[in-house]
Amino acid sequence: MKSDAESIQAAFRQVQDHIAAYLNEVEGTPFREDKWDFEKGRGGGISRIWEDGKVWEKGGVNFSAIEGDALPTSALAQIALPPGTPYLATGVSLVIHPRNPRVPTIHMNIRYFEAGDKWWFGGGIDCTPYYPVREQIIGFHKALKGLCEKHGRDFTQDKEACDRYFFLPHRNEARGIGGIFFDHVHSDKAVDLEFVTALGYAFPDLYHPFVEGNRDKPYGEREKDFQLYRRSRYVEFNLVYDRGTLFGLQSGGRTESILMSMPPLAAWKYAWKPPEGSEEARLTDDFLKPRDWAGQ
Amino acid sequence: MKSDAESIQAAFRQVQDHIAAYLNEVEGTPFREDKWDFEKGRGGGISRIWEDGKVWEKGGVNFSAIEGDALPTSALAQIALPPGTPYLATGVSLVIHPRNPRVPTIHMNIRYFEAGDKWWFGGGIDCTPYYPVREQIIGFHKALKGLCEKHGRDFTQDKEACDRYFFLPHRNEARGIGGIFFDHVHSDKAVDLEFVTALGYAFPDLYHPFVEGNRDKPYGEREKDFQLYRRSRYVEFNLVYDRGTLFGLQSGGRTESILMSMPPLAAWKYAWKPPEGSEEARLTDDFLKPRDWAGQ
Repeated sequence: MKSDAESIQAAFRQVQDHIAAYLNEVEGTPFREDKWDFEKGRGGGISRIWEDGKVWEKGGVNFSAIEGDALPTSALAQIALPPGTPYLATGVSLVIHPRNPRVPTIHMNIRYFEAGDKWWFGGGIDCTPYYPVREQIIGFHKALKGLCEKHGRDFTQDKEACDRYFFLPHRNEARGIGGIFFDHVHSDKAVDLEFVTALGYAFPDLYHPFVEGNRDKPYGEREKDFQLYRRSRYVEFNLVYDRGTLFGLQSGGRTESILMSMPPLAAWKYAWKPPEGSEEARLTDDFLKPRDWAGQ
Repeated sequence: MKSDAESIQAAFRQVQDHIAAYLNEVEGTPFREDKWDFEKGRGGGISRIWEDGKVWEKGGVNFSAIEGDALPTSALAQIALPPGTPYLATGVSLVIHPRNPRVPTIHMNIRYFEAGDKWWFGGGIDCTPYYPVREQIIGFHKALKGLCEKHGRDFTQDKEACDRYFFLPHRNEARGIGGIFFDHVHSDKAVDLEFVTALGYAFPDLYHPFVEGNRDKPYGEREKDFQLYRRSRYVEFNLVYDRGTLFGLQSGGRTESILMSMPPLAAWKYAWKPPEGSEEARLTDDFLKPRDWAGQ
Protein backbone atom coordinates (compact mmCIF):
# COMPACT_ATOMS: atom_id res chain seq x y z
CA MET A 1 0.00 0.00 0.00
CA LYS A 2 2.69 2.41 1.09
CA SER A 3 4.57 2.23 -2.19
CA ASP A 4 1.29 2.72 -4.07
CA ALA A 5 0.65 5.93 -2.17
CA GLU A 6 4.16 7.15 -2.87
CA SER A 7 3.89 6.58 -6.59
CA ILE A 8 0.48 8.26 -6.64
CA GLN A 9 1.93 11.25 -4.81
CA ALA A 10 4.78 11.43 -7.32
CA ALA A 11 2.30 11.30 -10.22
CA PHE A 12 0.22 14.06 -8.62
CA ARG A 13 3.31 16.25 -8.15
CA GLN A 14 3.93 15.98 -11.87
CA VAL A 15 0.34 16.99 -12.57
CA GLN A 16 0.87 20.07 -10.42
CA ASP A 17 4.06 20.89 -12.34
CA HIS A 18 2.28 20.48 -15.65
CA ILE A 19 -0.60 22.76 -14.70
CA ALA A 20 1.62 25.36 -13.03
CA ALA A 21 3.78 25.54 -16.17
CA TYR A 22 0.68 26.28 -18.24
CA LEU A 23 -0.60 28.94 -15.85
CA ASN A 24 2.86 30.52 -15.72
CA GLU A 25 3.03 30.61 -19.49
CA VAL A 26 -0.30 32.39 -19.85
CA GLU A 27 0.40 34.88 -17.08
CA GLY A 28 3.98 35.51 -18.20
CA THR A 29 5.25 35.70 -14.62
CA PRO A 30 5.91 32.76 -12.30
CA PHE A 31 3.89 31.59 -9.31
CA ARG A 32 4.68 32.21 -5.68
CA GLU A 33 5.44 28.91 -3.97
CA ASP A 34 4.85 28.00 -0.32
CA LYS A 35 5.72 24.65 1.20
CA TRP A 36 3.87 23.72 4.35
CA ASP A 37 3.84 20.97 6.98
CA PHE A 38 0.62 19.31 8.12
CA GLU A 39 0.64 20.26 11.78
CA LYS A 40 -2.15 17.91 12.83
CA GLY A 41 -0.45 14.82 11.41
CA ARG A 42 2.33 13.92 8.98
CA GLY A 43 3.14 15.23 5.52
CA GLY A 44 2.27 18.58 4.04
CA GLY A 45 1.90 20.37 0.77
CA ILE A 46 3.06 22.80 -1.86
CA SER A 47 0.92 25.79 -2.83
CA ARG A 48 1.59 27.70 -6.03
CA ILE A 49 -0.23 30.98 -6.19
CA TRP A 50 -0.79 33.78 -8.70
CA GLU A 51 -2.15 37.06 -7.39
CA ASP A 52 -2.91 40.42 -8.94
CA GLY A 53 -1.74 39.22 -12.33
CA LYS A 54 -2.61 40.50 -15.82
CA VAL A 55 -4.66 37.40 -16.59
CA TRP A 56 -5.06 35.62 -13.24
CA GLU A 57 -6.46 38.05 -10.73
CA LYS A 58 -6.09 35.35 -8.07
CA GLY A 59 -5.68 31.62 -8.09
CA GLY A 60 -3.51 28.70 -7.29
CA VAL A 61 -2.75 25.06 -7.77
CA ASN A 62 -2.12 23.06 -4.59
CA PHE A 63 -0.50 19.70 -4.03
CA SER A 64 -0.87 17.99 -0.68
CA ALA A 65 0.02 14.60 0.79
CA ILE A 66 -1.02 14.13 4.38
CA GLU A 67 -1.56 11.37 6.92
CA GLY A 68 -3.76 11.81 9.97
CA ASP A 69 -5.10 9.82 12.88
CA ALA A 70 -8.82 10.50 12.38
CA LEU A 71 -10.60 10.94 9.05
CA PRO A 72 -12.84 14.03 9.29
CA THR A 73 -16.59 13.47 9.03
CA SER A 74 -16.80 15.40 5.73
CA ALA A 75 -14.89 12.55 4.05
CA LEU A 76 -17.11 9.86 5.57
CA ALA A 77 -20.21 10.58 3.50
CA GLN A 78 -21.09 7.44 1.54
CA ILE A 79 -18.17 5.45 2.94
CA ALA A 80 -18.66 2.83 5.65
CA LEU A 81 -15.84 3.69 8.04
CA PRO A 82 -16.04 4.48 11.73
CA PRO A 83 -15.21 8.06 12.73
CA GLY A 84 -11.64 8.31 13.91
CA THR A 85 -10.15 6.00 11.27
CA PRO A 86 -6.50 6.82 10.42
CA TYR A 87 -6.14 8.02 6.84
CA LEU A 88 -3.82 9.06 4.05
CA ALA A 89 -4.92 11.72 1.55
CA THR A 90 -3.15 13.18 -1.44
CA GLY A 91 -4.43 15.47 -4.13
CA VAL A 92 -4.06 18.34 -6.52
CA SER A 93 -6.62 21.10 -6.52
CA LEU A 94 -6.89 24.38 -8.35
CA VAL A 95 -9.17 27.37 -8.55
CA ILE A 96 -8.43 30.26 -10.90
CA HIS A 97 -10.23 33.62 -10.78
CA PRO A 98 -9.34 35.50 -13.99
CA ARG A 99 -9.33 39.28 -14.09
CA ASN A 100 -11.39 39.62 -17.26
CA PRO A 101 -15.06 38.86 -16.46
CA ARG A 102 -15.38 37.26 -19.87
CA VAL A 103 -12.99 34.46 -18.86
CA PRO A 104 -14.69 31.84 -16.64
CA THR A 105 -13.53 30.85 -13.19
CA ILE A 106 -12.31 27.27 -13.23
CA HIS A 107 -11.89 24.55 -10.63
CA MET A 108 -10.24 21.14 -10.85
CA ASN A 109 -9.36 18.56 -8.25
CA ILE A 110 -7.96 15.03 -8.22
CA ARG A 111 -7.51 13.12 -4.99
CA TYR A 112 -6.62 9.72 -3.54
CA PHE A 113 -7.57 8.42 -0.09
CA GLU A 114 -6.60 5.42 2.01
CA ALA A 115 -8.51 4.75 5.24
CA GLY A 116 -8.91 1.49 7.14
CA ASP A 117 -8.89 -1.28 4.51
CA LYS A 118 -10.30 1.01 1.81
CA TRP A 119 -8.83 3.17 -0.91
CA TRP A 120 -10.52 5.40 -3.44
CA PHE A 121 -9.98 8.19 -5.95
CA GLY A 122 -12.11 11.25 -6.45
CA GLY A 123 -12.06 14.49 -8.35
CA GLY A 124 -13.60 16.58 -11.04
CA ILE A 125 -13.56 19.79 -13.01
CA ASP A 126 -16.24 22.43 -13.33
CA CYS A 127 -16.40 25.77 -15.09
CA THR A 128 -18.12 28.95 -13.88
CA PRO A 129 -18.55 31.57 -16.59
CA TYR A 130 -19.92 35.07 -16.08
CA TYR A 131 -20.45 35.80 -19.77
CA PRO A 132 -20.81 32.31 -21.24
CA VAL A 133 -20.02 31.45 -24.85
CA ARG A 134 -22.09 28.54 -26.11
CA GLU A 135 -19.51 26.95 -28.41
CA GLN A 136 -16.86 27.03 -25.70
CA ILE A 137 -19.16 25.21 -23.29
CA ILE A 138 -20.04 22.59 -25.88
CA GLY A 139 -16.34 22.11 -26.65
CA PHE A 140 -15.55 21.70 -22.94
CA HIS A 141 -18.22 19.04 -22.45
CA LYS A 142 -17.30 17.19 -25.64
CA ALA A 143 -13.65 17.10 -24.57
CA LEU A 144 -14.64 15.70 -21.17
CA LYS A 145 -16.84 13.12 -22.83
CA GLY A 146 -13.90 12.03 -24.98
CA LEU A 147 -11.64 11.81 -21.93
CA CYS A 148 -14.16 9.71 -20.00
CA GLU A 149 -14.74 7.36 -22.92
CA LYS A 150 -11.03 6.85 -23.44
CA HIS A 151 -10.68 5.78 -19.80
CA GLY A 152 -13.82 3.66 -19.55
CA ARG A 153 -15.71 6.14 -17.36
CA ASP A 154 -19.43 6.73 -17.78
CA PHE A 155 -19.43 10.40 -18.85
CA THR A 156 -23.17 10.87 -18.34
CA GLN A 157 -22.93 9.59 -14.78
CA ASP A 158 -19.95 11.84 -13.94
CA LYS A 159 -21.53 14.83 -15.69
CA GLU A 160 -24.80 14.40 -13.79
CA ALA A 161 -22.92 13.95 -10.52
CA CYS A 162 -21.24 17.30 -11.27
CA ASP A 163 -24.60 18.98 -11.86
CA ARG A 164 -25.87 17.60 -8.55
CA TYR A 165 -22.75 18.48 -6.57
CA PHE A 166 -22.05 22.03 -7.77
CA PHE A 167 -25.50 23.28 -6.90
CA LEU A 168 -26.61 25.92 -4.35
CA PRO A 169 -29.89 24.71 -2.79
CA HIS A 170 -30.49 28.05 -1.04
CA ARG A 171 -30.35 29.81 -4.43
CA ASN A 172 -31.87 26.89 -6.36
CA GLU A 173 -29.08 27.59 -8.81
CA ALA A 174 -26.22 25.73 -10.47
CA ARG A 175 -22.76 27.07 -9.65
CA GLY A 176 -21.66 26.96 -13.27
CA ILE A 177 -22.08 25.13 -16.54
CA GLY A 178 -20.90 21.83 -15.07
CA GLY A 179 -18.20 19.40 -16.07
CA ILE A 180 -17.52 16.07 -14.38
CA PHE A 181 -17.41 14.98 -10.73
CA PHE A 182 -16.63 11.55 -9.28
CA ASP A 183 -15.96 10.18 -5.81
CA HIS A 184 -15.22 6.76 -4.30
CA VAL A 185 -13.77 5.50 -7.56
CA HIS A 186 -12.09 2.14 -6.89
CA SER A 187 -11.93 -0.30 -9.75
CA ASP A 188 -8.35 -1.14 -10.67
CA LYS A 189 -5.89 1.16 -8.96
CA ALA A 190 -3.60 1.61 -11.97
CA VAL A 191 -6.54 2.26 -14.30
CA ASP A 192 -8.13 4.74 -11.87
CA LEU A 193 -4.81 6.56 -11.39
CA GLU A 194 -4.40 6.82 -15.14
CA PHE A 195 -7.83 8.39 -15.45
CA VAL A 196 -7.37 11.04 -12.75
CA THR A 197 -3.86 11.96 -13.92
CA ALA A 198 -5.16 12.16 -17.51
CA LEU A 199 -7.74 14.67 -16.29
CA GLY A 200 -4.94 16.67 -14.66
CA TYR A 201 -2.83 16.64 -17.82
CA ALA A 202 -5.85 17.60 -19.90
CA PHE A 203 -6.47 20.73 -17.83
CA PRO A 204 -4.62 23.19 -20.10
CA ASP A 205 -6.44 21.89 -23.18
CA LEU A 206 -9.78 22.01 -21.36
CA TYR A 207 -9.38 25.54 -20.04
CA HIS A 208 -7.37 27.21 -22.77
CA PRO A 209 -10.24 27.72 -25.24
CA PHE A 210 -12.01 29.81 -22.58
CA VAL A 211 -8.85 31.81 -21.94
CA GLU A 212 -7.72 32.29 -25.52
CA GLY A 213 -11.23 33.01 -26.75
CA ASN A 214 -12.07 35.69 -24.18
CA ARG A 215 -8.99 37.18 -22.52
CA ASP A 216 -8.64 40.08 -24.93
CA LYS A 217 -12.32 40.96 -25.07
CA PRO A 218 -13.03 44.46 -23.75
CA TYR A 219 -15.03 44.93 -20.59
CA GLY A 220 -16.13 47.82 -18.39
CA GLU A 221 -17.48 48.56 -14.95
CA ARG A 222 -20.78 46.81 -15.67
CA GLU A 223 -19.09 43.52 -16.53
CA LYS A 224 -16.64 43.78 -13.61
CA ASP A 225 -19.49 44.52 -11.18
CA PHE A 226 -21.38 41.51 -12.44
CA GLN A 227 -18.31 39.31 -12.04
CA LEU A 228 -17.89 40.47 -8.41
CA TYR A 229 -21.56 39.84 -7.74
CA ARG A 230 -21.45 36.33 -9.21
CA ARG A 231 -18.22 35.54 -7.35
CA SER A 232 -20.16 35.84 -4.09
CA ARG A 233 -22.10 32.75 -5.18
CA TYR A 234 -18.77 30.95 -5.52
CA VAL A 235 -17.92 31.98 -1.95
CA GLU A 236 -21.30 30.75 -0.71
CA PHE A 237 -20.86 27.36 -2.36
CA ASN A 238 -17.31 26.78 -1.18
CA LEU A 239 -17.90 27.85 2.43
CA VAL A 240 -21.34 26.33 2.97
CA TYR A 241 -21.28 23.14 0.89
CA ASP A 242 -17.93 22.17 -0.60
CA ARG A 243 -16.71 18.91 0.94
CA GLY A 244 -13.09 19.60 -0.03
CA THR A 245 -13.10 22.95 1.76
CA LEU A 246 -14.82 21.50 4.84
CA PHE A 247 -12.44 18.51 4.81
CA GLY A 248 -9.50 20.88 4.73
CA LEU A 249 -10.80 23.08 7.54
CA GLN A 250 -11.90 20.09 9.65
CA SER A 251 -8.66 18.17 9.17
CA GLY A 252 -6.66 21.17 10.33
CA GLY A 253 -5.00 21.77 6.98
CA ARG A 254 -3.26 25.02 6.06
CA THR A 255 -6.05 27.60 5.95
CA GLU A 256 -4.36 29.87 3.40
CA SER A 257 -3.94 26.95 0.99
CA ILE A 258 -7.51 25.75 1.45
CA LEU A 259 -8.97 29.23 1.04
CA MET A 260 -6.84 30.13 -1.97
CA SER A 261 -10.11 29.21 -3.72
CA MET A 262 -11.70 32.43 -2.46
CA PRO A 263 -11.96 35.23 -5.03
CA PRO A 264 -9.84 38.37 -4.64
CA LEU A 265 -12.98 40.51 -4.40
CA ALA A 266 -16.66 39.58 -4.15
CA ALA A 267 -19.83 41.62 -3.86
CA TRP A 268 -23.20 40.96 -2.27
CA LYS A 269 -26.21 43.05 -3.30
CA TYR A 270 -29.53 42.66 -1.54
CA ALA A 271 -32.15 40.95 -3.72
CA TRP A 272 -30.48 42.17 -6.90
CA LYS A 273 -31.35 40.77 -10.30
CA PRO A 274 -29.95 41.67 -13.69
CA PRO A 275 -32.37 43.47 -16.02
CA GLU A 276 -34.68 41.07 -17.85
CA GLY A 277 -33.35 39.95 -21.20
CA SER A 278 -29.86 41.33 -20.54
CA GLU A 279 -26.69 39.34 -21.22
CA GLU A 280 -26.35 39.04 -17.44
CA ALA A 281 -29.88 37.63 -17.03
CA ARG A 282 -29.19 35.02 -19.70
CA LEU A 283 -26.44 33.53 -17.52
CA THR A 284 -28.92 32.24 -14.92
CA ASP A 285 -32.02 32.03 -17.10
CA ASP A 286 -30.39 30.08 -19.85
CA PHE A 287 -26.85 28.82 -19.24
CA LEU A 288 -27.03 27.73 -15.59
CA LYS A 289 -29.62 25.07 -16.43
CA PRO A 290 -28.04 21.61 -16.63
CA ARG A 291 -28.38 20.04 -20.06
CA ASP A 292 -26.67 17.67 -22.45
CA TRP A 293 -24.08 20.15 -23.75
CA ALA A 294 -21.93 17.40 -25.25
CA GLY A 295 -24.85 16.26 -27.42
CA GLN A 296 -25.51 19.71 -28.93
CA MET B 1 -48.57 28.87 24.64
CA LYS B 2 -50.02 30.31 21.45
CA SER B 3 -50.92 33.62 23.05
CA ASP B 4 -47.43 33.79 24.60
CA ALA B 5 -45.88 33.43 21.17
CA GLU B 6 -48.13 36.11 19.76
CA SER B 7 -47.26 38.62 22.45
CA ILE B 8 -43.55 37.82 22.04
CA GLN B 9 -43.85 38.37 18.29
CA ALA B 10 -45.59 41.69 18.91
CA ALA B 11 -42.82 42.74 21.32
CA PHE B 12 -40.17 41.76 18.78
CA ARG B 13 -41.89 43.76 16.04
CA GLN B 14 -41.64 46.82 18.28
CA VAL B 15 -37.94 46.15 18.79
CA GLN B 16 -37.48 46.07 15.02
CA ASP B 17 -39.37 49.38 14.71
CA HIS B 18 -37.20 50.95 17.42
CA ILE B 19 -33.93 49.88 15.82
CA ALA B 20 -35.06 50.74 12.28
CA ALA B 21 -36.04 54.25 13.43
CA TYR B 22 -32.53 54.75 14.84
CA LEU B 23 -30.82 53.45 11.71
CA ASN B 24 -33.06 55.65 9.55
CA GLU B 25 -32.22 58.69 11.63
CA VAL B 26 -28.47 58.21 11.30
CA GLU B 27 -28.62 57.46 7.58
CA GLY B 28 -31.08 60.25 6.87
CA THR B 29 -32.97 58.17 4.31
CA PRO B 30 -35.46 55.38 5.06
CA PHE B 31 -35.03 51.65 4.72
CA ARG B 32 -36.33 49.48 1.92
CA GLU B 33 -38.90 47.05 3.29
CA ASP B 34 -39.73 43.56 2.02
CA LYS B 35 -42.39 41.32 3.52
CA TRP B 36 -42.02 37.62 2.84
CA ASP B 37 -43.91 34.37 3.45
CA PHE B 38 -42.21 31.29 4.84
CA GLU B 39 -42.71 28.89 1.97
CA LYS B 40 -41.66 25.76 3.87
CA GLY B 41 -44.20 26.31 6.67
CA ARG B 42 -46.38 29.07 8.09
CA GLY B 43 -45.61 32.68 8.92
CA GLY B 44 -42.96 34.88 7.39
CA GLY B 45 -41.00 38.03 8.02
CA ILE B 46 -40.21 41.66 7.37
CA SER B 47 -36.77 42.73 6.16
CA ARG B 48 -35.67 46.34 6.39
CA ILE B 49 -32.57 47.06 4.39
CA TRP B 50 -30.18 49.96 3.83
CA GLU B 51 -27.85 49.76 0.86
CA ASP B 52 -25.27 52.06 -0.64
CA GLY B 53 -25.97 54.72 2.00
CA LYS B 54 -23.77 57.55 3.24
CA VAL B 55 -23.26 55.85 6.62
CA TRP B 56 -24.56 52.31 6.12
CA GLU B 57 -22.87 50.77 3.12
CA LYS B 58 -25.10 47.73 3.56
CA GLY B 59 -27.15 46.28 6.37
CA GLY B 60 -30.54 45.40 7.63
CA VAL B 61 -32.76 44.52 10.52
CA ASN B 62 -35.01 41.50 10.06
CA PHE B 63 -38.08 40.34 11.92
CA SER B 64 -39.39 36.84 11.39
CA ALA B 65 -42.07 34.63 12.91
CA ILE B 66 -42.30 31.16 11.44
CA GLU B 67 -43.72 27.75 12.23
CA GLY B 68 -42.41 24.58 10.66
CA ASP B 69 -42.89 20.84 10.82
CA ALA B 70 -39.30 19.81 11.52
CA LEU B 71 -36.75 21.75 13.57
CA PRO B 72 -33.46 21.90 11.60
CA THR B 73 -30.45 20.12 13.13
CA SER B 74 -28.58 23.41 13.61
CA ALA B 75 -31.11 24.35 16.32
CA LEU B 76 -30.82 20.98 18.06
CA ALA B 77 -27.33 21.47 19.49
CA GLN B 78 -27.56 21.21 23.27
CA ILE B 79 -31.29 20.60 23.25
CA ALA B 80 -32.77 17.14 23.83
CA LEU B 81 -35.33 16.95 21.06
CA PRO B 82 -35.73 14.36 18.34
CA PRO B 83 -35.03 15.56 14.79
CA GLY B 84 -38.25 16.40 13.03
CA THR B 85 -39.95 18.10 15.97
CA PRO B 86 -42.47 20.78 14.93
CA TYR B 87 -41.36 24.26 16.01
CA LEU B 88 -42.17 27.92 16.25
CA ALA B 89 -39.39 30.50 15.94
CA THR B 90 -39.49 34.27 16.11
CA GLY B 91 -36.67 36.76 16.24
CA VAL B 92 -35.07 40.03 15.32
CA SER B 93 -31.59 40.07 13.80
CA LEU B 94 -29.43 42.77 12.42
CA VAL B 95 -26.04 43.19 10.78
CA ILE B 96 -24.75 46.60 9.74
CA HIS B 97 -21.70 47.15 7.53
CA PRO B 98 -20.80 50.85 7.72
CA ARG B 99 -19.03 52.58 4.85
CA ASN B 100 -16.32 54.23 6.96
CA PRO B 101 -13.75 51.58 7.99
CA ARG B 102 -13.38 53.38 11.30
CA VAL B 103 -16.95 52.49 12.28
CA PRO B 104 -17.27 48.85 13.43
CA THR B 105 -19.56 46.29 11.89
CA ILE B 106 -22.25 45.31 14.38
CA HIS B 107 -24.51 42.31 14.86
CA MET B 108 -27.42 41.76 17.22
CA ASN B 109 -30.02 39.02 17.48
CA ILE B 110 -32.85 38.10 19.83
CA ARG B 111 -34.92 34.99 19.30
CA TYR B 112 -37.59 32.78 20.85
CA PHE B 113 -38.24 29.11 20.10
CA GLU B 114 -40.97 26.62 20.95
CA ALA B 115 -40.45 22.95 20.06
CA GLY B 116 -42.04 19.88 21.57
CA ASP B 117 -42.72 20.71 25.21
CA LYS B 118 -39.79 23.15 25.38
CA TRP B 119 -39.39 26.87 24.94
CA TRP B 120 -36.29 29.03 25.12
CA PHE B 121 -34.86 32.44 24.30
CA GLY B 122 -31.49 33.17 22.76
CA GLY B 123 -29.58 36.10 21.36
CA GLY B 124 -26.61 38.36 21.69
CA ILE B 125 -24.69 41.29 20.35
CA ASP B 126 -21.10 41.46 19.17
CA CYS B 127 -19.00 44.21 17.65
CA THR B 128 -16.36 43.86 14.92
CA PRO B 129 -14.10 46.90 14.57
CA TYR B 130 -11.44 47.39 11.90
CA TYR B 131 -9.74 50.34 13.62
CA PRO B 132 -10.68 49.79 17.28
CA VAL B 133 -10.87 52.57 19.85
CA ARG B 134 -10.13 51.32 23.36
CA GLU B 135 -12.49 53.59 25.28
CA GLN B 136 -15.38 52.76 22.98
CA ILE B 137 -14.86 49.04 23.54
CA ILE B 138 -14.68 49.49 27.31
CA GLY B 139 -17.86 51.58 27.23
CA PHE B 140 -19.65 48.90 25.16
CA HIS B 141 -18.73 46.12 27.59
CA LYS B 142 -19.58 48.22 30.66
CA ALA B 143 -22.99 49.03 29.20
CA LEU B 144 -23.64 45.33 28.53
CA LYS B 145 -22.53 44.48 32.07
CA GLY B 146 -25.03 47.00 33.43
CA LEU B 147 -27.80 45.61 31.25
CA CYS B 148 -27.09 42.04 32.36
CA GLU B 149 -26.96 42.99 36.04
CA LYS B 150 -30.23 44.89 35.81
CA HIS B 151 -31.93 41.76 34.42
CA GLY B 152 -30.31 39.20 36.69
CA ARG B 153 -28.09 37.73 33.96
CA ASP B 154 -24.54 36.58 34.68
CA PHE B 155 -22.59 39.03 32.47
CA THR B 156 -19.29 37.11 32.75
CA GLN B 157 -20.97 33.91 31.61
CA ASP B 158 -22.69 35.61 28.63
CA LYS B 159 -19.53 37.53 27.74
CA GLU B 160 -17.39 34.39 27.76
CA ALA B 161 -20.02 32.52 25.74
CA CYS B 162 -19.73 35.33 23.18
CA ASP B 163 -15.94 34.97 23.04
CA ARG B 164 -16.31 31.22 22.50
CA TYR B 165 -19.06 31.51 19.89
CA PHE B 166 -17.71 34.31 17.68
CA PHE B 167 -14.41 32.58 17.04
CA LEU B 168 -12.88 31.27 13.80
CA PRO B 169 -11.04 28.01 14.62
CA HIS B 170 -9.42 27.84 11.17
CA ARG B 171 -7.89 31.30 11.77
CA ASN B 172 -7.45 30.81 15.53
CA GLU B 173 -8.91 34.29 15.71
CA ALA B 174 -11.79 36.08 17.42
CA ARG B 175 -14.32 37.63 15.05
CA GLY B 176 -14.41 40.89 16.98
CA ILE B 177 -14.09 42.42 20.40
CA GLY B 178 -16.99 40.40 21.80
CA GLY B 179 -20.15 41.35 23.59
CA ILE B 180 -22.69 38.91 24.99
CA PHE B 181 -24.20 35.68 23.70
CA PHE B 182 -26.79 33.40 25.29
CA ASP B 183 -28.86 30.43 24.18
CA HIS B 184 -31.45 28.12 25.74
CA VAL B 185 -32.47 30.76 28.27
CA HIS B 186 -35.62 29.54 30.03
CA SER B 187 -36.16 30.76 33.56
CA ASP B 188 -39.38 32.77 33.86
CA LYS B 189 -40.85 33.57 30.45
CA ALA B 190 -41.84 37.15 31.29
CA VAL B 191 -38.45 37.89 32.88
CA ASP B 192 -36.56 36.36 29.96
CA LEU B 193 -38.66 38.29 27.45
CA GLU B 194 -37.97 41.50 29.33
CA PHE B 195 -34.23 40.85 29.15
CA VAL B 196 -34.07 40.14 25.42
CA THR B 197 -36.34 43.04 24.51
CA ALA B 198 -34.26 45.32 26.78
CA LEU B 199 -31.21 44.27 24.76
CA GLY B 200 -33.07 45.19 21.60
CA TYR B 201 -34.10 48.59 22.91
CA ALA B 202 -30.57 49.22 24.16
CA PHE B 203 -29.11 48.71 20.67
CA PRO B 204 -28.99 52.38 19.62
CA ASP B 205 -27.26 53.35 22.88
CA LEU B 206 -24.81 50.47 22.58
CA TYR B 207 -23.85 51.16 18.97
CA HIS B 208 -24.13 54.92 18.75
CA PRO B 209 -20.83 55.74 20.53
CA PHE B 210 -19.00 53.77 17.81
CA VAL B 211 -20.94 55.61 15.10
CA GLU B 212 -20.80 59.11 16.54
CA GLY B 213 -17.17 58.76 17.57
CA ASN B 214 -15.85 57.55 14.21
CA ARG B 215 -18.19 58.33 11.32
CA ASP B 216 -16.56 61.62 10.39
CA LYS B 217 -12.96 60.44 10.71
CA PRO B 218 -11.09 60.61 7.43
CA TYR B 219 -9.95 57.44 5.70
CA GLY B 220 -8.25 56.50 2.47
CA GLU B 221 -7.59 53.56 0.22
CA ARG B 222 -5.42 51.83 2.81
CA GLU B 223 -8.16 51.82 5.44
CA LYS B 224 -10.84 50.80 2.92
CA ASP B 225 -8.68 47.93 1.63
CA PHE B 226 -8.14 46.73 5.17
CA GLN B 227 -11.87 46.86 5.87
CA LEU B 228 -12.60 44.78 2.75
CA TYR B 229 -9.92 42.28 3.75
CA ARG B 230 -11.28 41.95 7.30
CA ARG B 231 -14.85 41.65 6.03
CA SER B 232 -13.86 38.37 4.37
CA ARG B 233 -13.36 36.96 7.88
CA TYR B 234 -16.94 37.98 8.63
CA VAL B 235 -18.09 36.06 5.56
CA GLU B 236 -16.07 33.02 6.62
CA PHE B 237 -17.60 33.02 10.09
CA ASN B 238 -21.19 33.47 8.96
CA LEU B 239 -21.10 30.90 6.17
CA VAL B 240 -18.98 28.23 7.89
CA TYR B 241 -20.01 28.46 11.55
CA ASP B 242 -22.94 30.73 12.35
CA ARG B 243 -25.85 28.67 13.64
CA GLY B 244 -28.37 31.39 12.80
CA THR B 245 -27.26 31.46 9.17
CA LEU B 246 -27.23 27.67 8.91
CA PHE B 247 -30.63 27.47 10.66
CA GLY B 248 -32.01 29.94 8.14
CA LEU B 249 -30.59 28.12 5.12
CA GLN B 250 -31.56 24.66 6.47
CA SER B 251 -35.10 25.70 7.42
CA GLY B 252 -35.69 27.05 3.93
CA GLY B 253 -35.99 30.66 5.02
CA ARG B 254 -35.77 33.57 2.59
CA THR B 255 -32.17 33.52 1.36
CA GLU B 256 -31.94 37.25 0.68
CA SER B 257 -33.05 38.03 4.24
CA ILE B 258 -30.66 35.52 5.80
CA LEU B 259 -27.72 36.67 3.70
CA MET B 260 -28.38 40.38 4.24
CA SER B 261 -25.58 39.82 6.78
CA MET B 262 -23.06 39.51 3.95
CA PRO B 263 -20.90 42.61 3.35
CA PRO B 264 -21.36 44.66 0.17
CA LEU B 265 -17.77 43.96 -0.84
CA ALA B 266 -15.13 41.66 0.65
CA ALA B 267 -11.53 40.86 -0.31
CA TRP B 268 -9.37 37.78 0.11
CA LYS B 269 -5.61 38.10 -0.17
CA TYR B 270 -3.37 35.05 -0.08
CA ALA B 271 -1.38 34.77 3.18
CA TRP B 272 -1.46 38.52 3.67
CA LYS B 273 -0.52 40.14 6.97
CA PRO B 274 -0.45 43.80 7.91
CA PRO B 275 3.02 45.28 8.46
CA GLU B 276 4.34 44.58 11.96
CA GLY B 277 3.53 47.31 14.45
CA SER B 278 1.00 48.98 12.13
CA GLU B 279 -2.44 50.10 13.29
CA GLU B 280 -3.80 47.21 11.22
CA ALA B 281 -1.55 44.67 12.95
CA ARG B 282 -2.68 45.90 16.36
CA LEU B 283 -6.24 44.84 15.55
CA THR B 284 -5.37 41.12 15.64
CA ASP B 285 -2.28 41.28 17.84
CA ASP B 286 -3.91 43.33 20.57
CA PHE B 287 -7.65 43.93 20.32
CA LEU B 288 -8.91 40.55 19.06
CA LYS B 289 -7.73 38.84 22.24
CA PRO B 290 -10.62 38.23 24.65
CA ARG B 291 -10.20 40.04 27.96
CA ASP B 292 -12.16 41.64 30.77
CA TRP B 293 -12.89 44.91 28.95
CA ALA B 294 -15.64 45.87 31.43
CA GLY B 295 -13.13 45.71 34.28
CA GLN B 296 -10.62 48.07 32.65
